[in-house]
Amino acid sequence: MTTKPSIPKGTRDFSPLEMAKRNYIFDTIREVYHLYGFQQIETPALETLATLMGKYGEEGDKLLFKILNSGDCMSGISDEELLSRNSAKLAGKFCEKGLRYDLTVPFARYVVMHREELVFPFKRYQIQPVWRADRPQKGRYREFYQCDADVVGSDSLLNEVELMQIVDTVFSRFGIRVCIKINNRKILTGIAELIGEAEKIVDITVAIDKLDKIGLDNVNAELREKGISEEAISKLQPVILLEGDNGEKLEKLRQLLASSATGLKGVEETAFILSTLDGLGLKNQVELDLTLARGLNYYTGAIFEVKALDVQMGSITGGGRYDNLTGVFGLAGVSGVGISFGADRIFDVLNQLDLYPKEASCGTRLLFANFGEREAAYSMQVLAQVRKAGIRAEIYPDCCKMKKQMGYANAKGIPYVALAGENEMAEGKVTLKDMVTGGQSLLTPEELIAIVGNCR
Amino acid sequence: MTTKPSIPKGTRDFSPLEMAKRNYIFDTIREVYHLYGFQQIETPALETLATLMGKYGEEGDKLLFKILNSGDCMSGISDEELLSRNSAKLAGKFCEKGLRYDLTVPFARYVVMHREELVFPFKRYQIQPVWRADRPQKGRYREFYQCDADVVGSDSLLNEVELMQIVDTVFSRFGIRVCIKINNRKILTGIAELIGEAEKIVDITVAIDKLDKIGLDNVNAELREKGISEEAISKLQPVILLEGDNGEKLEKLRQLLASSATGLKGVEETAFILSTLDGLGLKNQVELDLTLARGLNYYTGAIFEVKALDVQMGSITGGGRYDNLTGVFGLAGVSGVGISFGADRIFDVLNQLDLYPKEASCGTRLLFANFGEREAAYSMQVLAQVRKAGIRAEIYPDCCKMKKQMGYANAKGIPYVALAGENEMAEGKVTLKDMVTGGQSLLTPEELIAIVGNCR
Repeated sequence: MTTKPSIPKGTRDFSPLEMAKRNYIFDTIREVYHLYGFQQIETPALETLATLMGKYGEEGDKLLFKILNSGDCMSGISDEELLSRNSAKLAGKFCEKGLRYDLTVPFARYVVMHREELVFPFKRYQIQPVWRADRPQKGRYREFYQCDADVVGSDSLLNEVELMQIVDTVFSRFGIRVCIKINNRKILTGIAELIGEAEKIVDITVAIDKLDKIGLDNVNAELREKGISEEAISKLQPVILLEGDNGEKLEKLRQLLASSATGLKGVEETAFILSTLDGLGLKNQVELDLTLARGLNYYTGAIFEVKALDVQMGSITGGGRYDNLTGVFGLAGVSGVGISFGADRIFDVLNQLDLYPKEASCGTRLLFANFGEREAAYSMQVLAQVRKAGIRAEIYPDCCKMKKQMGYANAKGIPYVALAGENEMAEGKVTLKDMVTGGQSLLTPEELIAIVGNCR
Repeated sequence: MTTKPSIPKGTRDFSPLEMAKRNYIFDTIREVYHLYGFQQIETPALETLATLMGKYGEEGDKLLFKILNSGDCMSGISDEELLSRNSAKLAGKFCEKGLRYDLTVPFARYVVMHREELVFPFKRYQIQPVWRADRPQKGRYREFYQCDADVVGSDSLLNEVELMQIVDTVFSRFGIRVCIKINNRKILTGIAELIGEAEKIVDITVAIDKLDKIGLDNVNAELREKGISEEAISKLQPVILLEGDNGEKLEKLRQLLASSATGLKGVEETAFILSTLDGLGLKNQVELDLTLARGLNYYTGAIFEVKALDVQMGSITGGGRYDNLTGVFGLAGVSGVGISFGADRIFDVLNQLDLYPKEASCGTRLLFANFGEREAAYSMQVLAQVRKAGIRAEIYPDCCKMKKQMGYANAKGIPYVALAGENEMAEGKVTLKDMVTGGQSLLTPEELIAIVGNCR
């Protein structure tokens, strides 16, 4: 039987070069997370549907990949139920498990299950794939990695400050110039109170979130559609379009929100974060942006988002504070704040700006050509010494035409080829060919090692 | 709604300490793979069922985790089919995708799909989780990692030799003493021919594979049960129980298999691999073991298996040569040879023998205590310098009782705590407390950095 192979839509294979670049991204983020005292955990790809369902809204429930129960998946289902053909309902009977949809809900589940063994504040990071049955499109995949860091069990705003430092450090290391946008859910709540539409805060933030995409008129139209009064909408305008530097914006907000205790708290939190960051001298700019809402209902304090300055691309990192991460799993009072780097978009930005360092694709340094059994046996001895020195090296396994062997070295980007025939064997040496210059020299193994060196 | 959270049976959460140990294992294997010129790829967790089904035998098909089609999973299924309640058949209608069951079949699929862009021989490694709906038991999980390396597109036995060198290097780095067992499918075929039961080779190898577990009598009983004649069984005895060192065994096999061209080829391949390895001076012993068959039908040449010498544990690494990896996907003539490290078992062996190096759990080196807003702001400045020097460091985010902050440092195993109050701030210094000795000293940031150093 022959199957013409393919992979499911929205999924990807990663080639060696892509993997080298992706590892460069993950390693950079990981290293900075470590520098800030975050510790790695991993959770299973499979979670019970009880853990996943109802956490991402109705739409999210539909986008969960569900795993068919193994064995008899039809047991306990009546004929009537089957013939009802209610896919959504039957899915709950056919399936008990689903694939992780994000890293936040599994993390909340982890914190609750392991709370006795954890030390709080718990600073964890997690770099793992997630799966969503979304319609695949350019830049949107059904399987993709998230790189999250969260601190739970601490209300201190120093956590927010450190997360911004992490963002600044990571993008500085990548060489990507970014603007870090910051907002605060409490400011948004204050604004909703101010205009007398406190219960419509969700509609308002979702609409404001679209300002960049659809423009002010359409945002206002959407607000109208959601039943927000003309008076409220008109009160909202100066707030949405607030201008000036961070200090000016904060000062104006202090006046506008004077009557809202929550709103003022949001202003003070933001002022603290921004002034502390000022004192620490970040490389990238941080900008208070009231249109930032991220459409996510669970943020309760600071909200962040990062945009690259030199390419057209959506948000490449985001996050914020949520005050009741674990409540849904029965553990109240655990506050948290976190960020998530968008690895796929960062991959694209680095490609577009051609910012990958050479080391990110560093593979084999040296290839031993194969001239036959005796020569290969000799080469294997030298090869063992070379590897012992930590140099990535190979021998071409088959004795075939030199052209093919050299083609292999070129295709793999191997910079040096070692040749060992009768003469070299007699002298206990090898001829080293530099694939870039074409130059050749006869060397002892020790000399060879010194020249080929290692890029790591 | 409160859900008491749990995870699916057979899956695991990994704590920061477990992750540090697992990363040590993966990083060690990865580093050695790189040293030998292997390049990493990744394939999606989701594969089409067309790719997966029929590749692991009937039992394997049942152990595949299948993903319910999103949207209307019932479409195109008649009422009769539904009411037939044939789970296995309906699963094929409800589901088009499944979770990766191993790394070999996705690799074969990868090679066929990307053959135009690959350079052969293609040396790839892959470290990713796989999923099996097996009954979970001690040491057997439904989600676990595999760490595979394969060379495809080369028949040279130097590949086998290098894979054995990799095994030897990896376990030397771990400090685990092992016995590397080697056999050859062609020798087993020769033996089957010799006793006139060529078509029963599968039954014979499966039975021989159980020798360690059930003993010779039961193996013979099983052979009898499979319809192998008494004459054949009696001819088989000296072969199964062959003794002596590798050279003696090979010499005896040369005589016993004189009439079988295939058998002799297997003997010569094994002799070449063993003698080449001899010349390279491995640290661990390599032993020809004719009872080694690994129950896998797709091996066509060398077969390997690794056992730890100092603990009771099954095989911790295995592999072999297969001559038609990609045939099932329509690409004939691609031979390959590979190994797979069993990360979970290696994790257990390292734990049992207490072989993890200290660096494997190296986390934060320095914690800044938090005495209040002004002191914290000062500490954040010093902290930024410390991190700039590459030292993993934190500040306790909340200003709370010293006992709690010190408890945090102890629980996380942080060796140094920095204290900065009025006096320190006035002098531009910090007090460094060594958490092991309890000693304290007043230092400049530069002195602090020099002392705390870094374990990486």
